Amino acid sequence: MQNFEFYNPVNIVFGQGQIRKLGKLVPNDTKIMLAYGGGSIFKNGVYDQVKAALPGYHLIEFGGIEPNPHYETLMKAVEIVKTEKIGFILAVGGGSVLDGVKFIAAAALWVGEDPWEFLTNRSLTVTRAIPIGSIITLPATGSEMNGNSVVTRLSTQEKLAFNADAVLPVFSILDPTTVFSLPEKQVANGVVDAFVHVIEQYLTYPVNSPIQDRFAESILVTLVEEGPKVLANRTDYDSAANFMWAATMALNGLIGAGVPQDWATHTIGHELTAFYNIDHARTLAIVLPGIMQVKRESKQEKLLQFGERVWGIKAGTSDERIDATIARTVAFFESVGIPTKLSAYNIGSDFIKVVCDRFIQRGIKGIGERGDLTVPQIAEVLTLQL
Amino acid sequence: MQNFEFYNPVNIVFGQGQIRKLGKLVPNDTKIMLAYGGGSIFKNGVYDQVKAALPGYHLIEFGGIEPNPHYETLMKAVEIVKTEKIGFILAVGGGSVLDGVKFIAAAALWVGEDPWEFLTNRSLTVTRAIPIGSIITLPATGSEMNGNSVVTRLSTQEKLAFNADAVLPVFSILDPTTVFSLPEKQVANGVVDAFVHVIEQYLTYPVNSPIQDRFAESILVTLVEEGPKVLANRTDYDSAANFMWAATMALNGLIGAGVPQDWATHTIGHELTAFYNIDHARTLAIVLPGIMQVKRESKQEKLLQFGERVWGIKAGTSDERIDATIARTVAFFESVGIPTKLSAYNIGSDFIKVVCDRFIQRGIKGIGERGDLTVPQIAEVLTLQL
Repeated sequence: MQNFEFYNPVNIVFGQGQIRKLGKLVPNDTKIMLAYGGGSIFKNGVYDQVKAALPGYHLIEFGGIEPNPHYETLMKAVEIVKTEKIGFILAVGGGSVLDGVKFIAAAALWVGEDPWEFLTNRSLTVTRAIPIGSIITLPATGSEMNGNSVVTRLSTQEKLAFNADAVLPVFSILDPTTVFSLPEKQVANGVVDAFVHVIEQYLTYPVNSPIQDRFAESILVTLVEEGPKVLANRTDYDSAANFMWAATMALNGLIGAGVPQDWATHTIGHELTAFYNIDHARTLAIVLPGIMQVKRESKQEKLLQFGERVWGIKAGTSDERIDATIARTVAFFESVGIPTKLSAYNIGSDFIKVVCDRFIQRGIKGIGERGDLTVPQIAEVLTLQL
Repeated sequence: MQNFEFYNPVNIVFGQGQIRKLGKLVPNDTKIMLAYGGGSIFKNGVYDQVKAALPGYHLIEFGGIEPNPHYETLMKAVEIVKTEKIGFILAVGGGSVLDGVKFIAAAALWVGEDPWEFLTNRSLTVTRAIPIGSIITLPATGSEMNGNSVVTRLSTQEKLAFNADAVLPVFSILDPTTVFSLPEKQVANGVVDAFVHVIEQYLTYPVNSPIQDRFAESILVTLVEEGPKVLANRTDYDSAANFMWAATMALNGLIGAGVPQDWATHTIGHELTAFYNIDHARTLAIVLPGIMQVKRESKQEKLLQFGERVWGIKAGTSDERIDATIARTVAFFESVGIPTKLSAYNIGSDFIKVVCDRFIQRGIKGIGERGDLTVPQIAEVLTLQL
């Protein structure tokens, strides 16, 4: 096991009816920005529950935060936070709304030139932010229990991330009944997103970390079991709850503590979203199988362990078992309705040069757990997935 | 899954050499009580590392906190904390030292009659405490990442617990090399203690909670694998680290969130310690097999799951599998050198009436996950373990 620090002070309030507790969790001595996305919270009844739970609170609404939240939109909210002297931001919606709110909360107190710089300049750290709370309505990103945020800038076609303890939500309410009204596509995206979050922290090389490995496998097996149940019957409370808790545990720092991490799939996937606006989870489903193939040697031990413990693949040579493991993973993504080839998204080989040029331009030599997935190998990954 | 809240803000700093970071974690603008036990920290070098990491800090030492820390001892520390106006307490040692420090921290700010009342009177809650940090040197209790404390009062032969967010450590440093110098008996106790902590939150009845179940099984399997390795080779760093992290994860609230919990084994075990001063873990090893036997019907589904997933028991009728599961658990405890019968500790049947009378006196009708382990059944449990 590697040395690590683990700190996660998010107060998780989980279960049906928990939105009622909002009044105890949100401060009532300050102006509150109620931030949301495209309006699903009006349809699923969450907006009404929030309003009912916060009678007399000074709420200022900011709607319209889009999937892959846009810098351009969020900066409008930053202006409102500053002008109105808002003291708390409540994010109600999916991971994009919460990621957007993390950016707003940090940008509102940023003293530098342009808040975009804490995404582009890795030497800058966010240390202050307006306090945040969240009601998460879409299990997927794990944003409800981490300090991560990913923001897209339309003008430059960039999608970049930052991480800071300062933007950890004070609390997150997870009510599984919010899953009941989700469209099939969003459930499928959420299952794959959470699955790949686990893979990025697990499918690397062994460091003798049985707790972390088994926790990761626990989440993967649960997603494989519960994901299809949620898709088949959206109002199955227990499956929704298990899916929701799995997505949170997939990216709250716990399974990644003390082990190497990859994140190459995300780094490449973000470019697919930045250039083609493909859903985040779908980009991961495209890229991951290519990385498993190209890095099958350096990931061999964990690929075999993953195949055996998650897919039950025990027979055959190492090569045969790895082939079967990759095939089984692809089949799972496809089974929930997510294509894994670029052609399914009408993307051809031209894209590969565009992405590789950007990595070269950013001075990236290699990515992944050993920093050895080079730009030519990234091209190889994408070529495999044409 | 049941509704739950999960809040655990302890900053975990894990790994070899991490005691060096103490200066960044402990405040330097207040008097610090450095609390420890019987002096093992002088032998294993931890005391010297602590002193080296805190040059110029105002440290006031309080040593001699005993296993199953005594109210009588701790109240002496409370007086010092008050007189010296101590602003931070650093616990260095095992779970008993840290449990003791939690009591000291809460008692020093208690405004009621006698701090003992927040152990005896369940309607009283600890809401304020002197901030605490810990360096845990014995993987066992999980006290480093929870708000639990158990204190023994000699004058009344009582061993009672309290729990409060206010006594959650601000940070806990876990350096696996502290395991290298532990005596065999303490390692064995730690393995069994952590194992039974998991069991108390797992071996109840199913509520469709696959993440919690699999995490629990992950910890149990890891303890079964790593415990004997640590016993066989105390300086195997990886095994020590895995054992240490398993013990922390066994009782930090995570696996118990959203599921029923038992704790009957602990409730009965505490009486064995209170009356006979038997090591805490040993009392658990005595009581648990009796409870598995007496509650084999109401625990049937989880007993079968436990047997299959942890011990690999798949063949036979349900009754045969449960018999094998209990036998395998007993064999594991015995294999690490911990006897599971009262006779091995020279305790006869007289004890049973003493314990049962106390439960009756406290007005206890039943304990366990359904509150239906009655006093006559407690007698049955103990009779089985004579």
